[in-house]
Amino acid sequence: MENKKPLILISNDDGVSAKGINELIRFLRPLGDLVVMAPDSARSGNGCALTVNAPVHYRLVHQEEGLSVYQCSGTPTDCVKLARNTVLPREPDLVVAGINHGDNSAVNVHYSGTMGVVIEGCLNDIPSIGFSLDSHDPEADFTPCEPFVQEIVRKVLDAGLPPLTCLNVNMPAVADIRGIRVCAQARGNWVREWECCPRANGANYYWLTGEFVNHDPEDDTRDHWAIRQGYIAVTPTTVDMTAYDAMRRISELLATDPEAGFRGK
Amino acid sequence: MENKKPLILISNDDGVSAKGINELIRFLRPLGDLVVMAPDSARSGNGCALTVNAPVHYRLVHQEEGLSVYQCSGTPTDCVKLARNTVLPREPDLVVAGINHGDNSAVNVHYSGTMGVVIEGCLNDIPSIGFSLDSHDPEADFTPCEPFVQEIVRKVLDAGLPPLTCLNVNMPAVADIRGIRVCAQARGNWVREWECCPRANGANYYWLTGEFVNHDPEDDTRDHWAIRQGYIAVTPTTVDMTAYDAMRRISELLATDPEAGFRGK
Repeated sequence: MENKKPLILISNDDGVSAKGINELIRFLRPLGDLVVMAPDSARSGNGCALTVNAPVHYRLVHQEEGLSVYQCSGTPTDCVKLARNTVLPREPDLVVAGINHGDNSAVNVHYSGTMGVVIEGCLNDIPSIGFSLDSHDPEADFTPCEPFVQEIVRKVLDAGLPPLTCLNVNMPAVADIRGIRVCAQARGNWVREWECCPRANGANYYWLTGEFVNHDPEDDTRDHWAIRQGYIAVTPTTVDMTAYDAMRRISELLATDPEAGFRGK
Repeated sequence: MENKKPLILISNDDGVSAKGINELIRFLRPLGDLVVMAPDSARSGNGCALTVNAPVHYRLVHQEEGLSVYQCSGTPTDCVKLARNTVLPREPDLVVAGINHGDNSAVNVHYSGTMGVVIEGCLNDIPSIGFSLDSHDPEADFTPCEPFVQEIVRKVLDAGLPPLTCLNVNMPAVADIRGIRVCAQARGNWVREWECCPRANGANYYWLTGEFVNHDPEDDTRDHWAIRQGYIAVTPTTVDMTAYDAMRRISELLATDPEAGFRGK
């Protein structure tokens, strides 16, 4: 790696023309050679979705020294898979997603296309980080985040991340960020999720909407809380979804031979 | 619950007309009142994707005593959200997804629309189970699975599941199932994922394809292995993706005050 700049793959779920990804590109330009493969339009809420029933297409939209930008017809996860198999000269040293317009803390990790990018990188043993800003404003100010984004990326490029572990970084939309906290994923769920969408001669049309209800106690220190206190919340996130704590109990409940075979991590 | 049949919400990602979901309905008819809300067409690889840029629509397609079947224009996750907020008279006692045409063990948990259904149920504190058969044959024989599916559903209806924990059940496509094993999620990744799709006057069109490479040792006992040995693999799956084991290390690397606040489960 001496004499060679790190190779960083960037994607997002708001689409290649969103302000967030273009700010991210600006922040990371000094840190490596950047290859961007991002959806051609907004793909929010895509989770780890794949495109299986149609071909996926990409094309180069911008190129200069140390930066290539491709747009892709697929999902955020498709973008990572496609870039790794086509335009990248080698495995990237880092996958970075974002900066998302909107908070991806708590249960949103499951729905987030931003985290879809990150999980895909992680599943392929590439250190991977997703950045999100707690504002849906298309013209949100990302400037206060710049030094933090650069510091996190620099340190992860240097130290790597543990196996099967990626980072879900959620940032408050405030001028005075209080610092970085490492947090667990907040507990909670979405309520009042549908808004009726009347249609002439049709019934049962609904728009997805909703409010997140945090189930944590008020003095909790999980990610959703930390952002609201003005901290950047870094949630170490595993791609091994096994509920190890529950294995013994589930084995006693269901296994035909509860003593057979299973083991911990 | 005495004198009242359990209320079971069923969905899938292969669409309401797939053989797998209709077999599942047949298996579960004796066990409760069934409400089916399933996608109107195949939604494989949808993960936990949501429909955010268009309204979602549902309609009743079949009704008889103890069984209502709705089809929905949305994703598998949309189906659960929509059913809970519209057609269900109360929270269901159980969410069941499948039976999927194809294995959802190992890393496939992230891409699976079947598991998208299950994760959505679990995030709302409803015991939730996904069933998948290790065969993509649209006419696959699900009959050998019947007693196992019924037994697992009966036991979970009776005992519930631990908080934040759902089940990813993958079944071998064999006549003589050897039994049920409780397993961890196998390690591995997908390779050779794209097949070029030539198009007149166009370049860079690709179909998603690929092969899964299992990284576990040959004598491992994780889910992908167990299915191939003829066992039903039950993988207890958590919706809390926090990498608790990595929190201390990430905190020392990144937190501005590594001693502040964070706690374990």
